[in-house]
Amino acid sequence: MAQKPSIPKGTRDFSPVEMAKRNYIFNTIRDVYALYGYRQIETPAMENLSTLMGKYGEEGDKLLFKILNSGDFVAKTTDEELLGRNSIRLTNKFCEKGLRYDLTVPFARYVVQHREELQLPFKRYQIQPVWRADRPQKGRYREFYQCDADVVGSDSLLNEVELVQIIDEVFSRFGIRVCIKINNRKILAGIAEIIGAPDKIVDITVAIDKLDKIGLDNVNAELLAGGLSQESVEKLQPILTLSGSNEEKLESIAHVLADSETGLKGVEEVKFVLGEVADARPHNEVELDLTLARGLNYYTGCIFEVKALDVQIGSITGGGRYDNLTGIFGMPGLSGVGISFGADRIYDVLNQLELYPEDAVGGCRILFINFGLREAKQCMAYARKLRTEGISAEVYPDSVKMKKQMSYANAHGVPYVALVGENEIKEGKLMLKDMVSGNQQLVSIEEVVELLNKS
Amino acid sequence: MAQKPSIPKGTRDFSPVEMAKRNYIFNTIRDVYALYGYRQIETPAMENLSTLMGKYGEEGDKLLFKILNSGDFVAKTTDEELLGRNSIRLTNKFCEKGLRYDLTVPFARYVVQHREELQLPFKRYQIQPVWRADRPQKGRYREFYQCDADVVGSDSLLNEVELVQIIDEVFSRFGIRVCIKINNRKILAGIAEIIGAPDKIVDITVAIDKLDKIGLDNVNAELLAGGLSQESVEKLQPILTLSGSNEEKLESIAHVLADSETGLKGVEEVKFVLGEVADARPHNEVELDLTLARGLNYYTGCIFEVKALDVQIGSITGGGRYDNLTGIFGMPGLSGVGISFGADRIYDVLNQLELYPEDAVGGCRILFINFGLREAKQCMAYARKLRTEGISAEVYPDSVKMKKQMSYANAHGVPYVALVGENEIKEGKLMLKDMVSGNQQLVSIEEVVELLNKS
Repeated sequence: MAQKPSIPKGTRDFSPVEMAKRNYIFNTIRDVYALYGYRQIETPAMENLSTLMGKYGEEGDKLLFKILNSGDFVAKTTDEELLGRNSIRLTNKFCEKGLRYDLTVPFARYVVQHREELQLPFKRYQIQPVWRADRPQKGRYREFYQCDADVVGSDSLLNEVELVQIIDEVFSRFGIRVCIKINNRKILAGIAEIIGAPDKIVDITVAIDKLDKIGLDNVNAELLAGGLSQESVEKLQPILTLSGSNEEKLESIAHVLADSETGLKGVEEVKFVLGEVADARPHNEVELDLTLARGLNYYTGCIFEVKALDVQIGSITGGGRYDNLTGIFGMPGLSGVGISFGADRIYDVLNQLELYPEDAVGGCRILFINFGLREAKQCMAYARKLRTEGISAEVYPDSVKMKKQMSYANAHGVPYVALVGENEIKEGKLMLKDMVSGNQQLVSIEEVVELLNKS
Repeated sequence: MAQKPSIPKGTRDFSPVEMAKRNYIFNTIRDVYALYGYRQIETPAMENLSTLMGKYGEEGDKLLFKILNSGDFVAKTTDEELLGRNSIRLTNKFCEKGLRYDLTVPFARYVVQHREELQLPFKRYQIQPVWRADRPQKGRYREFYQCDADVVGSDSLLNEVELVQIIDEVFSRFGIRVCIKINNRKILAGIAEIIGAPDKIVDITVAIDKLDKIGLDNVNAELLAGGLSQESVEKLQPILTLSGSNEEKLESIAHVLADSETGLKGVEEVKFVLGEVADARPHNEVELDLTLARGLNYYTGCIFEVKALDVQIGSITGGGRYDNLTGIFGMPGLSGVGISFGADRIYDVLNQLELYPEDAVGGCRILFINFGLREAKQCMAYARKLRTEGISAEVYPDSVKMKKQMSYANAHGVPYVALVGENEIKEGKLMLKDMVSGNQQLVSIEEVVELLNKS
């Protein structure tokens, strides 16, 4: 046999069982998004490189998968350019399109491109794969799904409240215990202001983001190395070591930020969101966490992140408010807020905790054993009857050994097997075998319908 | 404002309403596939070019979208090769991956790659986009979805019978009247044999395939030009002008093909499939059509095609049996049969005939008008209550002018709007407006639940 074919590294095939589990995840998220009035859109896998380049930083540009132009793609390149061997410059010559890197930039592009058709506020969700030429490693893939919901064109904090409620509802449906963490970029900006280093906000948030991973001492060292004064770093300490209830934390922060208008605005926003969320009695813990900064610099207001409580894994959902996402496409002044569920990590968590409901991964309900053409014809008629009742049914297509057919039923987790031989046909009945208990009973097709509709 | 951003030609954005319609199509097909025991898989968008190249003919190779290798993609190319400017050779140097062109080749690759995990027969369905660098034109896109079901590892004709039943059921659910056409490659091979030109089968099927489009005279001319003798072309005439019921046609053909073992085998196969399908009383017409040949040369047995009766459009579904699909990956002897629904054309047909059920395209069920923060808080509580009852509900996030909020409700086709002002809060009620009739009534939230669950 020839060499086994394979797929590109960092990509995956999904088997029927894996697909059933993934569909359970996507459908749960989709259902909750729809309950809150978010509406689905889809954008093409390929975007113009002019849409994608420069939106994810220099590193991001490198991680974009580029599509070679069709036809004579070298025609417009001079000999000198070819021999210059500058891969970035040649990429620009050879490629006009790339695969989408996330759902956020295509969404911003969508909003600007279709602005005349859109009724604002626009609440959309989008569940599609994205591609990144990252080095593949455990839990990191070159093709993976994102499940985003965003609302643009509304400044109201009620959106933030609802998004936290959506997160809470989704994880409650999954049965995954989580802590929903919330922070606000304005608080971080206020802190930078108070310690007299407003231009250092990016450095500070990046450093704070690492607090969990590298510890307080290393964060302090990084801040100093980044050019903050010893005095500023000291001022930061009470903020970094804050504790107590959300209310207590907010009070302390408001105290520290008394002189920063921006900072106090951030405190107010978080207070409102936390208060409204608490009033609705969420299933999960919702916590103010100042160390939460998220890498993305386009956030301008509240930011969210979700940690699973019973599994060691990174953030499984994140999001926040951004005030100028469509500005990159020439449409300024449109505020938005959104969240993104990490389907692959949620998949890992559900697997590890074995939280899939039984009917989420089940396939066909009943398999008819094939004893030969005459019997199979009768089985086909029975199967059709079951399907009109909404019961999925299969007839084994070939009249091979019973053992092989039963092993097929077992491999697919089919709960019932029907045996229809000469005698059963004579009696107008079928022998129904419960594959879990092993019990057999002679029943009519109507009784099968009743039994399978109940179970 | 900067230049409006755009998307690559031949690709599309799907708006919420379009997505709702597309989901209705995909879900209908998915439901029927699952009822028949087909199980979903997904494969990556990118495949190794070694998997894709050479599988779709020379023209197909050109239509593959190729992905530029990451990093210094020119490193392994010599100056001479660069200056040779041979775009095909350079593509091989610069690219290792491509976007999938259909779902059939990736499925064959999947079966061979995972053969140790698979329990044959393997009945799989797959609903994913494919990409082709075709010249875009009306109804032809560079990114479009295919909805395939195939079973491999079973020679039984019962599979063909079930696939025709699946087609019949899907179009019956859509409410699209169709004619399901069926033919068999063995009949075509028998014909070639009888007229003494067994090596001309490809030419003959390609020519017959054009009968509808260019007429009998031109087909005859093409056959002569292709090297068939005048005598052979004459022998073909009764076959091309066949008429009557399926049974009558089969009888005439069996007569003509009396000396061809292969041909008679084909007649037997079609007879069996048509007979079984007829016994189950299909919703749609099922017709033997000898002019049906389909372009794809890998079919070896029955072939299917579906024509819509009430709309002028090409084939909206097709398929057939192939006996050696996995042979291209070194795994010979595995027979398969499958079908593929053309989602984009079905979408056009449903639009043209206005066949979408009302609830397929509906969004949110009720919108709460926002009269200010205090009222909105009450509305948020009401909305949560409705959502726990499975009713999708939105609170307009900003307390803007009533007119703007009502126009939002209209634009989204929201059937009910709830008004909760100071008075309503005092009474513990809400004013419910039916957006179709315009009627308003003062009701409790429990009454809203009851009313929306019923409607």
